Amino acid sequence: MTQPILNALGQPPRPAHVRIPGDIATCADYERHAVHHVEAGAWRHIQGGCDQGATLAHNRAAFDRLQLLPRPFADLRGGHTRLRMLGQAFEHPLLAAPVAYQCLVHPEGELASVRAAMALQAGYVASTLSSYTLEEIAVAAREAARELVRGAPLWFQLYSQPAREHTLALVRRAEAAGYQAIVWTVDAAVKRAGMALPPGVLAANLRGYPVRRHTSQAGQGAIILGTPLADAAPSLAELDWLRAGTSLPLIVKGLLDPVQAAEAVARGADAIVVSNHGGRVMDGVPSPLDVLPAVRAAVPEAPILLDSGIRWGTDVAKALALGADAVLIGRPLLHALAVGGMAGAAHLLHLLRAELELVLAQLGCPNLGQLAPTSVWRVQKD
Amino acid sequence: MTQPILNALGQPPRPAHVRIPGDIATCADYERHAVHHVEAGAWRHIQGGCDQGATLAHNRAAFDRLQLLPRPFADLRGGHTRLRMLGQAFEHPLLAAPVAYQCLVHPEGELASVRAAMALQAGYVASTLSSYTLEEIAVAAREAARELVRGAPLWFQLYSQPAREHTLALVRRAEAAGYQAIVWTVDAAVKRAGMALPPGVLAANLRGYPVRRHTSQAGQGAIILGTPLADAAPSLAELDWLRAGTSLPLIVKGLLDPVQAAEAVARGADAIVVSNHGGRVMDGVPSPLDVLPAVRAAVPEAPILLDSGIRWGTDVAKALALGADAVLIGRPLLHALAVGGMAGAAHLLHLLRAELELVLAQLGCPNLGQLAPTSVWRVQKD
Amino acid sequence: MTQPILNALGQPPRPAHVRIPGDIATCADYERHAVHHVEAGAWRHIQGGCDQGATLAHNRAAFDRLQLLPRPFADLRGGHTRLRMLGQAFEHPLLAAPVAYQCLVHPEGELASVRAAMALQAGYVASTLSSYTLEEIAVAAREAARELVRGAPLWFQLYSQPAREHTLALVRRAEAAGYQAIVWTVDAAVKRAGMALPPGVLAANLRGYPVRRHTSQAGQGAIILGTPLADAAPSLAELDWLRAGTSLPLIVKGLLDPVQAAEAVARGADAIVVSNHGGRVMDGVPSPLDVLPAVRAAVPEAPILLDSGIRWGTDVAKALALGADAVLIGRPLLHALAVGGMAGAAHLLHLLRAELELVLAQLGCPNLGQLAPTSVWRVQKD
Amino acid sequence: MTQPILNALGQPPRPAHVRIPGDIATCADYERHAVHHVEAGAWRHIQGGCDQGATLAHNRAAFDRLQLLPRPFADLRGGHTRLRMLGQAFEHPLLAAPVAYQCLVHPEGELASVRAAMALQAGYVASTLSSYTLEEIAVAAREAARELVRGAPLWFQLYSQPAREHTLALVRRAEAAGYQAIVWTVDAAVKRAGMALPPGVLAANLRGYPVRRHTSQAGQGAIILGTPLADAAPSLAELDWLRAGTSLPLIVKGLLDPVQAAEAVARGADAIVVSNHGGRVMDGVPSPLDVLPAVRAAVPEAPILLDSGIRWGTDVAKALALGADAVLIGRPLLHALAVGGMAGAAHLLHLLRAELELVLAQLGCPNLGQLAPTSVWRVQKD
Repeated sequence: MTQPILNALGQPPRPAHVRIPGDIATCADYERHAVHHVEAGAWRHIQGGCDQGATLAHNRAAFDRLQLLPRPFADLRGGHTRLRMLGQAFEHPLLAAPVAYQCLVHPEGELASVRAAMALQAGYVASTLSSYTLEEIAVAAREAARELVRGAPLWFQLYSQPAREHTLALVRRAEAAGYQAIVWTVDAAVKRAGMALPPGVLAANLRGYPVRRHTSQAGQGAIILGTPLADAAPSLAELDWLRAGTSLPLIVKGLLDPVQAAEAVARGADAIVVSNHGGRVMDGVPSPLDVLPAVRAAVPEAPILLDSGIRWGTDVAKALALGADAVLIGRPLLHALAVGGMAGAAHLLHLLRAELELVLAQLGCPNLGQLAPTSVWRVQKD
Repeated sequence: MTQPILNALGQPPRPAHVRIPGDIATCADYERHAVHHVEAGAWRHIQGGCDQGATLAHNRAAFDRLQLLPRPFADLRGGHTRLRMLGQAFEHPLLAAPVAYQCLVHPEGELASVRAAMALQAGYVASTLSSYTLEEIAVAAREAARELVRGAPLWFQLYSQPAREHTLALVRRAEAAGYQAIVWTVDAAVKRAGMALPPGVLAANLRGYPVRRHTSQAGQGAIILGTPLADAAPSLAELDWLRAGTSLPLIVKGLLDPVQAAEAVARGADAIVVSNHGGRVMDGVPSPLDVLPAVRAAVPEAPILLDSGIRWGTDVAKALALGADAVLIGRPLLHALAVGGMAGAAHLLHLLRAELELVLAQLGCPNLGQLAPTSVWRVQKD
Repeated sequence: MTQPILNALGQPPRPAHVRIPGDIATCADYERHAVHHVEAGAWRHIQGGCDQGATLAHNRAAFDRLQLLPRPFADLRGGHTRLRMLGQAFEHPLLAAPVAYQCLVHPEGELASVRAAMALQAGYVASTLSSYTLEEIAVAAREAARELVRGAPLWFQLYSQPAREHTLALVRRAEAAGYQAIVWTVDAAVKRAGMALPPGVLAANLRGYPVRRHTSQAGQGAIILGTPLADAAPSLAELDWLRAGTSLPLIVKGLLDPVQAAEAVARGADAIVVSNHGGRVMDGVPSPLDVLPAVRAAVPEAPILLDSGIRWGTDVAKALALGADAVLIGRPLLHALAVGGMAGAAHLLHLLRAELELVLAQLGCPNLGQLAPTSVWRVQKD
Repeated sequence: MTQPILNALGQPPRPAHVRIPGDIATCADYERHAVHHVEAGAWRHIQGGCDQGATLAHNRAAFDRLQLLPRPFADLRGGHTRLRMLGQAFEHPLLAAPVAYQCLVHPEGELASVRAAMALQAGYVASTLSSYTLEEIAVAAREAARELVRGAPLWFQLYSQPAREHTLALVRRAEAAGYQAIVWTVDAAVKRAGMALPPGVLAANLRGYPVRRHTSQAGQGAIILGTPLADAAPSLAELDWLRAGTSLPLIVKGLLDPVQAAEAVARGADAIVVSNHGGRVMDGVPSPLDVLPAVRAAVPEAPILLDSGIRWGTDVAKALALGADAVLIGRPLLHALAVGGMAGAAHLLHLLRAELELVLAQLGCPNLGQLAPTSVWRVQKD
């Protein structure tokens, strides 16, 4: 007898809504709804952080600790949220993060989320571990952009494969499919095992590639240091090799140390994603927002993106005020996808953008260039 | 079938008490009672802050973080709480805040609260969004003052209207009705939509005026920057125009940035209300109390009022010790109005004043001029 | 029909135990038991602090924030806890605080607590508001000291009376009854009304004296400043008068401000009790422990006692390490009195003293003179 | 009728599992399971800290307050966790702490835990208060090491006995049995009474030795200072005597004060265990992690071990980054022993080691020597 599929509340998961529920106005509302739509194990996987969840909690606390200082009298005329990064134009600084296996929450998975991103003119980063192939995702993006006469840059997130030939094959496929940048994730090579995927969900891009056991199986005797797993972790040598291997912009994702960020840029990285992988890899790690000012100081020129913990428009403003150029939206997009498929994901991006614009208006910033550390107020708690 | 009207506890709302319940001795007691008297949606609207409620919580935390240092041996003889602001005399530093739509909690709304204020000699600020007209409120104030042989200054809170002619019309009406100052609110021009008003509650002052949609409707596609909404937000130019347009004292309400406060005064504002609109406009905003010392340093001469979070006499003393001249009482007045109508509101003002006097006596301050930053003790938490 | 008498748990109050319950080993255990023994209104009165209870909570937090650094290798031979204050000898630094109306929790009230104090060689401070007269208490103390061949100093706590002649009468009675010091409380002249006393409990010392209404009755219109109540609050002139009026040591109780402490000593006070009246008079007041180092610096020579919040032997050590000479035990003594009468109060004093000695041994301090600020460790929370 | 034996959940304690439950992946999982296996009184004894449990809570908080900064690009090739201390080789820096009376949780007690330690190549410290004799433990260790062709150093933890001859007898027995170091505990000579041992559990090493009452019995009148108990507490003279009395390395366990640590080393101690005895001796004591940097600065050369609060691999890394050479695992080992006997204890040590290696890889440290204060990130909370 097979286990019945249940959500985290012990009920059969609800299918995605055809229409967005009327009581949804924020990311938090989508999260509240999403628990009804996602199978229990997938929900725990999506929501969880490692160990005690301290990094996860800290990612939020770092935002909550900061305050923004309104300035009502500013001249807002002609305001907008546009920016350029890596020579590419963005309508606003919200990008869809490279969340793996999006079919865990909705059958259309990445096809739905990329259409939503294009509809809302949000940059989209497709994961190596997508449940559709990067080629399928690119086609969906192009179709949506054409239909809607809108669109936004499409990037490919790369995990190094056990053999360099397969890593390079992924890069070549991304180039061929029209992706406009490679986002190389370097912070998750050595980590605990993740969840077992349910039937029908798989890493579509890696079909036929050899699989490296990415993680130590807790309790099964693997020790890390001195094994091939640790020995093959991302290195500066691999950065050099990858840099030489593609003419696409190369973005390094998963750095927190200002020194390493500067080193990556010095060796040719075009941008950095300051991230702790959403608190999923190691516990007790600094939040991206906390290290951001130091990273920005160490990398004064290159674009910096940030992820991990963004749930409100004020969070986006805080990240940009402290030095980020743009942010990646991860879990909230998955929640919205679970609740409303493509429409949900698009609605979520709209909500966040509208919140960001309200905040910019409150802060007296008619455009992103006006956001600066002076918008952040630090309470003196002496 | 119409929805039955229920309070936030799911019961039919109780009417206001004829007599004040005997177990009420503080603002907190009125709040505890008020939940029984107010319809659920109105209650959520009154009590709520935006987003996560961080600003709301922080407004209280800022008071709770400070301590006051008693000085028992002071000579208190001849003590009092009188002050002068803008050439006007006040018996004590408590003013009724310009809370909108007071008929949401009591059918006599602003007529009851203004009578209570006059009876307790508390300054009263009538809102542009009053449920009675400013003229009706002024009449009620005058009658109460005459009957009781008491009274206090009456001010008018102004929201800019879509067309300057209507903004100016409101000013002229306030002048004609005998209001003694214009309190121009500048921090709420761009914000989320509020609640829908129930039948019979309306902005009485604005009957026949065109209405600007003040807010983005979450989830309905409005983007802010570059739209007429943002372009028409309060500006220094509008401040100059307003300053030139009335000979009444002009008070700017809703500033937190010390630089903007100084700028407003330099351009002719007569006083400042340091406020974050009770945490209703943007989340993660500094509490007025936290910015107060910096605002006072930037505006050494002009009167400074403060609102947002005052619930105890100690809070009033803390605000005055750190540089405020007077404070505005908002939500607590609404709670008392809901519980006991005019009598409740008057009782609440009495309670707060009595608490303030006890605190002054404990601090060894026979009058408000003796309150100083040295009354505040800052714990060394090293 | 009269109200049945119930404790705070809604049950008939239990009488005091004849034998101490076997599961009592700390102050916290006595508190846990005491709730069963005390009538509900009296319990709320004893346990409560004013307003939000912030001062009450802060009194504990101040102790909990500090840490003590053990030093195992010290030579403890010949250790003891003796001290001298005001020319008087104490076996240990624990004194019974002048808690009012002790018959609220046990019919023998102050007679039981003073016998317990003498048995445990703890100094005892009798309250002006005792439920037995100061003469009765002195007799009980003398009898107990004689029977047990033990004893400790007996002091009298003085509240100023509406007329100086009655204040002086209390001093003369205390002198005549053999009290060895006057502890003049100066921090509670202006405060909210307290509880109504149940039948049979009264201020035995004040029978026949005129009563000043000590407090504003919340909600009944009294305003403080400019009234006789505030005008007659303790003053430096009254200190001078009192100093001149008795040859007993004069201790001023209820100062937190270092400047006022120094001023009192300069005018002839022999010692200071740093206290916020157990959080009962004003909320948001510094904890005595937090101001203690500054008071000690301002009063380098005179004895300093401290009360408010002591529940553990570590608390006593912290207070002494930061500059106090001795401490007063208030609520815990009442809890023990409620649970076990004289035996309970004695047991409690024994427990606290034993805890203190364990702590001294751990800290490597063979006597009280070895306690110093270097015993306190301050965590660097950067 | 005898009391039935029940665990802390009021159920008959479960025997240890033959196989490790499949849902155990961390120390926290073992703790969650262990409550089912341990008798209620023993559970309270194992889990508890003294007084309010502040030290216990602080031991964890000190770890949780720190963050570790990942550095993905490091070259990890040839990594390992080996170290040398006192001329002895360790595969990794995890040692089994000298937990008393391990038969309280499993009938094989120390015999099971020492076998587990040898199997996992973890150093083992046998307690004076073992439920098997130090000779039996040494035999079990040797057998396990021979069978498994593995092993690790074996140390003996020493409590001073009432008479020096018995203290010395324990040292001689440890030498004879092949123990490689003496770990002299100096922080628990004067403390409250512990639990009563159940039938069949005893201090096997001390059979026939006179017993000193180690503690004050709360509530039974014992006062500490000036009694033989306090007078005989560990002293520098005893350190000199012990140092002269054995050629084994001498490690002093239970110091927090940097000055005393330096003093002990200057008098011949070979290493220090920074510890607050797991929060069991005094409340409100600094956590070992908080004092560690100062102790390391005061003792720049000698090995420093640390215990109290380690539950995750990140904790080990934090301790080593701030100056410790190795750590002792106490309560977690007991939890695992209760759940799975020798297999559980071995599994636990494996889990912690695997976690540590994951963390080292994340931090870019191929070996322990690379851990440094720069791996620790301190959030600026201004």
